[in-house]
Amino acid sequence: MPEFEPRDPDFDARVRASFERQAAMTTLGITIVRLDAGMIELAMPYNEAFTQQHGFIHAGIMATALDSACGYAGFSLMPADAAVLTIEFKTNLLAPAKGELFTFQGRVIKPGRTVTVCEAQAFAHDRGAAKLVASMTATLMAVTGREGIQQ
Amino acid sequence: MPEFEPRDPDFDARVRASFERQAAMTTLGITIVRLDAGMIELAMPYNEAFTQQHGFIHAGIMATALDSACGYAGFSLMPADAAVLTIEFKTNLLAPAKGELFTFQGRVIKPGRTVTVCEAQAFAHDRGAAKLVASMTATLMAVTGREGIQQ
Amino acid sequence: MPEFEPRDPDFDARVRASFERQAAMTTLGITIVRLDAGMIELAMPYNEAFTQQHGFIHAGIMATALDSACGYAGFSLMPADAAVLTIEFKTNLLAPAKGELFTFQGRVIKPGRTVTVCEAQAFAHDRGAAKLVASMTATLMAVTGREGIQQ
Amino acid sequence: MPEFEPRDPDFDARVRASFERQAAMTTLGITIVRLDAGMIELAMPYNEAFTQQHGFIHAGIMATALDSACGYAGFSLMPADAAVLTIEFKTNLLAPAKGELFTFQGRVIKPGRTVTVCEAQAFAHDRGAAKLVASMTATLMAVTGREGIQQ
Repeated sequence: MPEFEPRDPDFDARVRASFERQAAMTTLGITIVRLDAGMIELAMPYNEAFTQQHGFIHAGIMATALDSACGYAGFSLMPADAAVLTIEFKTNLLAPAKGELFTFQGRVIKPGRTVTVCEAQAFAHDRGAAKLVASMTATLMAVTGREGIQQ
Repeated sequence: MPEFEPRDPDFDARVRASFERQAAMTTLGITIVRLDAGMIELAMPYNEAFTQQHGFIHAGIMATALDSACGYAGFSLMPADAAVLTIEFKTNLLAPAKGELFTFQGRVIKPGRTVTVCEAQAFAHDRGAAKLVASMTATLMAVTGREGIQQ
Repeated sequence: MPEFEPRDPDFDARVRASFERQAAMTTLGITIVRLDAGMIELAMPYNEAFTQQHGFIHAGIMATALDSACGYAGFSLMPADAAVLTIEFKTNLLAPAKGELFTFQGRVIKPGRTVTVCEAQAFAHDRGAAKLVASMTATLMAVTGREGIQQ
Repeated sequence: MPEFEPRDPDFDARVRASFERQAAMTTLGITIVRLDAGMIELAMPYNEAFTQQHGFIHAGIMATALDSACGYAGFSLMPADAAVLTIEFKTNLLAPAKGELFTFQGRVIKPGRTVTVCEAQAFAHDRGAAKLVASMTATLMAVTGREGIQQ
């Protein structure tokens, strides 16, 4: 796996500050487990309030955590003055999101000045066993200044 | 647009019963606005608890509503004993999810015995104007009996 | 469907000139049937040389025509000095690509200064009947100058 | 990476026989470099006949090879009497397909009785250096008997 050189030496503080401003993360109980240049790991507890009709976590909620994992992996490599926007993401649901805890590993596949491509995987943890339950590929765009808030 | 013949004449009650079992819909305040064979429209109010770092609705939350719109459009055409699973979905984020209310229109593009393909669009309603802010293509699988609960 | 105002009044000649430089289009026998600002229709005859194991056109060849349909729909709205790059595309194969002739309708869903999102649909024509066999969503990037050739 | 147990001990001969029936592979000069249960590597030489407007291999042609890489990785794990169909694929174009030779590594991420999910990566080889230029995620369906030919 490639190792990346961050353009912003303070990427750790910048990523954590932005993550804290995502109210959705707080509401879903999602936290940063690990953070490095170009990669991040998030964790989310099971919460019945976010389930689908069979009692498993809703695919869209899994996508919410996967999207943040992709977004912050990419954001960690961006310059200090850039905002990050998700252009698109694609998720494969490989197995039901059934477990007590879920972890999400995001990493940059291809960094770029404007466009960055990331991947993330979701694991369900159930009685000590971890199982791959979903994957995502996401395309991010770095924007600066007012453009980042409008787009 | 093609019109579909539902295999289950009671599809309306079946879709609404399953939708009510999705705790995530209740938590997010998502409701069914319109339902027909092969199509559904959902609505969701703005809720600061589900925002990203710029105060707009998180892309994954938009995907949650879009996924349910696709899933229930497809589910409406399935036989009475089938369960529906999302295999994959892909979302393009076209503009920030900025507005007071969001609506989601899902429809079946290609029904099938095993695999059904659906599309959905998300609109942001802001001071009377509606704007297309996201689109989704989703692939669903119809499963029966225990398989539907396990997979 | 939205109608678009082209930024380049000579978009028709510019699109056709770029299309002619795509050797892959000539090799596959793909031609422009219709072209307007933000939309294009292409046609491709059946050719056994590009089939998969069941004698139908290979999904990737269908994607080649769909990608060009998306790309040139988007390119028609770009400024005169821009080059177009596909960032990503997603295709759903709805039915086998079985027929004598295939047509591909591409159109812009969301134009943008940097990023443009397009959709395209593929139809198989067999003994007078047209059938939807594949769909694509594609994200394009407009680049200028040397960047367009390098990226 | 997980290792898979093939259900068909003769998967190698079965995959190669099907691959040879894909006329598109012969036309594009694509060959099997390596084959194992759940994984395959393909190679394709540069061919000006399949380029886009900048002289690089057309994204759809890259997708053709990536789709076959995903399809045959998945097909290798299917039972002897199954046919494989691609339901959908998504490709990220990470860099221009510029090089003398291209290789494509496909592998199964999640095998299943009906649905199998695969990933593939494309590398461009240019003056001794290999560069990741595209990635794909694909969903396959195993079908048996007449259904496999019709769908």
